Amino acid sequence: MRIAVDAMGGDYAPGAVIEGTAQALRDFPDIEIVLVGHLEKISFYLEKYRISSHPRLRLVHAEDVIEMGEPSTVALRSKKKSSMTIAASLVSDGEADAIVSAGHTGAAVAATKVIVRTLPGVERPAIAAIMPAAEGKFILVDAGANTDCKALHLAQFAVMGEAYSHLVFGIEKPKIGLLSVGGEDMKGNELTKETFKILSKMPINFVGNVEGHDVFARTADVIVCDGFVGNVLLKASESLAMATVHWIKNVFKKNAVRKTGAMLARNAFRDLKAIGDFEEYGGAPLLGLNAICVIGHGASSHKAVRNAIRVAGEFVKFGLNDRIVNGITEAGIAIDKQHAENKTNL
Amino acid sequence: MRIAVDAMGGDYAPGAVIEGTAQALRDFPDIEIVLVGHLEKISFYLEKYRISSHPRLRLVHAEDVIEMGEPSTVALRSKKKSSMTIAASLVSDGEADAIVSAGHTGAAVAATKVIVRTLPGVERPAIAAIMPAAEGKFILVDAGANTDCKALHLAQFAVMGEAYSHLVFGIEKPKIGLLSVGGEDMKGNELTKETFKILSKMPINFVGNVEGHDVFARTADVIVCDGFVGNVLLKASESLAMATVHWIKNVFKKNAVRKTGAMLARNAFRDLKAIGDFEEYGGAPLLGLNAICVIGHGASSHKAVRNAIRVAGEFVKFGLNDRIVNGITEAGIAIDKQHAENKTNL
Repeated sequence: MRIAVDAMGGDYAPGAVIEGTAQALRDFPDIEIVLVGHLEKISFYLEKYRISSHPRLRLVHAEDVIEMGEPSTVALRSKKKSSMTIAASLVSDGEADAIVSAGHTGAAVAATKVIVRTLPGVERPAIAAIMPAAEGKFILVDAGANTDCKALHLAQFAVMGEAYSHLVFGIEKPKIGLLSVGGEDMKGNELTKETFKILSKMPINFVGNVEGHDVFARTADVIVCDGFVGNVLLKASESLAMATVHWIKNVFKKNAVRKTGAMLARNAFRDLKAIGDFEEYGGAPLLGLNAICVIGHGASSHKAVRNAIRVAGEFVKFGLNDRIVNGITEAGIAIDKQHAENKTNL
Repeated sequence: MRIAVDAMGGDYAPGAVIEGTAQALRDFPDIEIVLVGHLEKISFYLEKYRISSHPRLRLVHAEDVIEMGEPSTVALRSKKKSSMTIAASLVSDGEADAIVSAGHTGAAVAATKVIVRTLPGVERPAIAAIMPAAEGKFILVDAGANTDCKALHLAQFAVMGEAYSHLVFGIEKPKIGLLSVGGEDMKGNELTKETFKILSKMPINFVGNVEGHDVFARTADVIVCDGFVGNVLLKASESLAMATVHWIKNVFKKNAVRKTGAMLARNAFRDLKAIGDFEEYGGAPLLGLNAICVIGHGASSHKAVRNAIRVAGEFVKFGLNDRIVNGITEAGIAIDKQHAENKTNL
């Protein structure tokens, strides 16, 4: 199994990416890595983490990198030799089975869509993000790849999330919910009402609408929505978590008694922080492509990169894409790509 | 100033509503209240809170009540004598200046839209919810009245939020942000991209897109979005807050040392809880109607009802609706209602 890793993507690249790569090489002996990046810029870290001449590491030079602020379509056109596009080309040429990048999400979506292409019958790849529930966790799909969707896209996202939940988390019949504004069938916007009808007929364990109030109560293993709503939900939840940390700090430092209490219970704060620490999951896969692609958070640490490589390897091993293709065929929701519009919204 | 209060709306109605009404009568001497409800069912509470023959209280009988689970349009058709519809009629007949209800939000939106009608040039009323930021608070509009919106609707919501922020919170030039998936102009879905163009030209303090990650960082005083996204954001935030309480309880009760720490700092938890306690604000106004309408949370306590009555009074006193009409005229974003569709999405 060979995984192409974008050495230049992410806020702490290339250092954190190469440290994570070194850990993955050490911990996962069945994984080979093709590291794509600017060779001069990464050589220091290759020496530092002692993998310059690792037998399971291959290096591929990339002249450019797509910076976080750049509009993805413009960047792709002008930077054909970016680490992201070269990693995608390696996969489409059969030289790697999967891509891992903590770089520009929009560029990763656009590059893989054009270079790697989508699975048969799939029109739009979607981001599947893992989120913490009061007890356990759930998968949110699409967490931001597609800002404007049709009902059939959401139905395909349901199959992708189902495959992920089943194969990686081992849930026999994952509960699939549709994010909406009320629990009843007839509640929602035009998109969700149409999607509801399609999901109801599919051979999946569809549990109906999940309203905002139940999102973190884990009424579903997979929550399906369009990428605009999904991105707002994912990012706003992170924003609220940060605000909560700020509030907690403020209320606990108000006087000496509270400070003493906080000190006694300091391990509780550590545990609380761990609940929101999704570095263990290593990143969000971009599902629906002809190859596995895992996108790390921009602020990915070496631990997140290591785990993203692990997750990409598991996806390849478990045959995630076969299950997605079968699921879409069985549900009769394949999209004829020749006749469908194929524009990128990122 | 006369306020029609729906005695039957809310999870703790009529008890909590009548207790809150009694407190409002005591605390706000310039407010008269018309209490609408089933007279037999409320008489016990009128006696209990000693307002049966209060000089500033008038009672109006309503045979029915719209229950929380009922589809709003069906309920309105079959229950013309519900407390909500009668309260709306009192306002349209000039017998009250404002409505306060903690009942069925969808029914309140539908009833007021049909009976009270929207302000000149306004097509859709919107719910303005107050949310806590890391420091301070912000207004989210639309928080759930309209599941499918056009750009011009969102532009009108911006004016409504601006008026609310300015008049009630005293912010001179409220910062208006557009909820989207990225900070840059070109990021968003079709709706937000079109809305961005309109807001940029309006005589308001438009600060651009607010992405999910910045929602609780208070980069804007008012955040504008469609009611589907707004409802998901509002409710999912409440859901995450509940999950956080659950996590906090779990981590602090793990052992005796932590329990001691938690006991020492117990007032910190109380303060933390108060940050999320928006009963002080009393409820979310439904803006854009010919009369003030304040909708309380279904679980409104007597305190929330009292404050909703206070807020409704302030809106009337401050001339909120005049500012909205002027704002819409000045921005040139009035909608010709005769030619616009006028369907309810709730």
